Amino acid sequence: MTLNQLAEIIKSRSNIAILPHVNPDGDCIGSSFALQLALQKLQKDSIVIVEEDIPQVYSFLAGKYAKLNEIPSGLVFDTVICLDCGDERRLNDRLYLFESAQTTVNVDHHISNTKFAQFNYVDTYSSATGEIIYDLLSILGVTIDKDIAANLYVAISTDTGGFRYGNTTSRTHHIAAAFLDTGIDIAEINRRVFDTVSMARLKLVAQAINNIEFYEDGKIALIALSYELIQKMGITDEEGDGLSSLPRTIEGVEVGLLLKEKAPGEVKVSFRSNQYVDVSKVAASFGGGGHKRASGCTLNMDMMAAKKQILEAVKLAVIQGVEE
Amino acid sequence: MTLNQLAEIIKSRSNIAILPHVNPDGDCIGSSFALQLALQKLQKDSIVIVEEDIPQVYSFLAGKYAKLNEIPSGLVFDTVICLDCGDERRLNDRLYLFESAQTTVNVDHHISNTKFAQFNYVDTYSSATGEIIYDLLSILGVTIDKDIAANLYVAISTDTGGFRYGNTTSRTHHIAAAFLDTGIDIAEINRRVFDTVSMARLKLVAQAINNIEFYEDGKIALIALSYELIQKMGITDEEGDGLSSLPRTIEGVEVGLLLKEKAPGEVKVSFRSNQYVDVSKVAASFGGGGHKRASGCTLNMDMMAAKKQILEAVKLAVIQGVEE
Repeated sequence: MTLNQLAEIIKSRSNIAILPHVNPDGDCIGSSFALQLALQKLQKDSIVIVEEDIPQVYSFLAGKYAKLNEIPSGLVFDTVICLDCGDERRLNDRLYLFESAQTTVNVDHHISNTKFAQFNYVDTYSSATGEIIYDLLSILGVTIDKDIAANLYVAISTDTGGFRYGNTTSRTHHIAAAFLDTGIDIAEINRRVFDTVSMARLKLVAQAINNIEFYEDGKIALIALSYELIQKMGITDEEGDGLSSLPRTIEGVEVGLLLKEKAPGEVKVSFRSNQYVDVSKVAASFGGGGHKRASGCTLNMDMMAAKKQILEAVKLAVIQGVEE
Repeated sequence: MTLNQLAEIIKSRSNIAILPHVNPDGDCIGSSFALQLALQKLQKDSIVIVEEDIPQVYSFLAGKYAKLNEIPSGLVFDTVICLDCGDERRLNDRLYLFESAQTTVNVDHHISNTKFAQFNYVDTYSSATGEIIYDLLSILGVTIDKDIAANLYVAISTDTGGFRYGNTTSRTHHIAAAFLDTGIDIAEINRRVFDTVSMARLKLVAQAINNIEFYEDGKIALIALSYELIQKMGITDEEGDGLSSLPRTIEGVEVGLLLKEKAPGEVKVSFRSNQYVDVSKVAASFGGGGHKRASGCTLNMDMMAAKKQILEAVKLAVIQGVEE
């Protein structure tokens, strides 16, 4: 399906539900709200339906939404548009809305997208689903106002790490420029999205810094969060995972490791590398996967055994990497 | 002077020294190197002259430079171009090069610029001097290659906090897009510039986090670095100042304070606010100054007395701010 065809479908429908994926991030929330506001301008009945609360950090964004438990049972939408959602499992309990809709649409930028809807538009060249929505609104003839711009700015800036990741293209910057032209306050948006942190998270960071271990002349840095510590500090999954990038940022480090004991005997490992170690291969050797510079796996053993095995493999990869 | 006139001056000269300000930052290094590479393409003798080593974080950038102590005494340049430099005092020991030159040029974006040269081009609308250099190279007909693009990308991204500050304009993004079109590896550049930290700095962050003090229901957060702690941890001025933004980022905080005892009886105070307290007024009441959201002052008293006075003033400003 082309974007023009998608625009035609939208124009011909009147009653539309927008479904972001579960555990919604900035891209899917911003994209969903922006599309909802645009549909409203086109006089369409439309609503974003989520399962969880919108994360506090994005609560300032405008857009009409409801939680699934607020939707009357038996309500059927003529069209459902899934955004930023790689497969239908990520619709979770909202799958019945998708299955009961007359028309189903899937708009995404993930390479792993399974094209699960009747109409699928998957553009893996876009840094964020927000870029696709920007193009779609342009075709629909919807003027980007400040509320839509703020949503799409958040969508794109969060999925590109603030225009820092390799998925950022020159087009990403040109699109961001269009949002700034509406007069949105990017200093305030960026402060809320990128520069606000909870004290609990800071305490965890301090704890992690003081317990970083180094190996191979500082080329490997490791943070281990034991089950005991996670329980004692009340660390959420999100807070724990947020530490996965920290060890890699230290000067001289090539591979950063986070070992998180999710349950006794179950250790989740995050690998990050900077320049020459392909951590997808290391993770794969433990049944995991990912990318060259970011990967993960889960080991069913205690922390000490997991650490020993992971370090052996990573040390070897670092030595081989240096030699190459 | 217009940019076109500046381009004419440059075209007519052959022997050019480029002088960034002392304690050079990303904008002045990137702008200076980019201009030097462009002059080289135009077959001009040119060199960037600095007093300190180029900071490690920018050592990957290309450009011909020398330290002042490597310049033969008595050497005279026909033209000197000062970049990103608000007044001639920021040339420090290189002032004699400026004073002995036949033609002097001053290119900057700071509102406080004193227009100290024969030819001055000060554009306060530009987010960075790098934006001005981009325009200048365009007029000079110099093609932006990867080395020039990397320099100017660093110049602009550092002065805008990675496109996050309010000085970022839509034009800033359009210009960044032009740099990405050359094929530079922004993921690697951003990793080096924004996501690399020394272990000493992390240890200081951990120490600071564990010693943050809160006042007024968490609306004020304060970090105090005593002279004793600074000596014990070997904290550099730069490392200490780097903490000034941290307290403000904590959820619920309106004013973040850093008190640094530079010498016994001398306390430097950094004020940062988020939404409603004008910290320039608070700093001014202690003989300091700055902007609404970032200001500073120095108090000649011990830490305990300084903390008491500063907190009294800030509490009052917070209470008044809430009421407004």
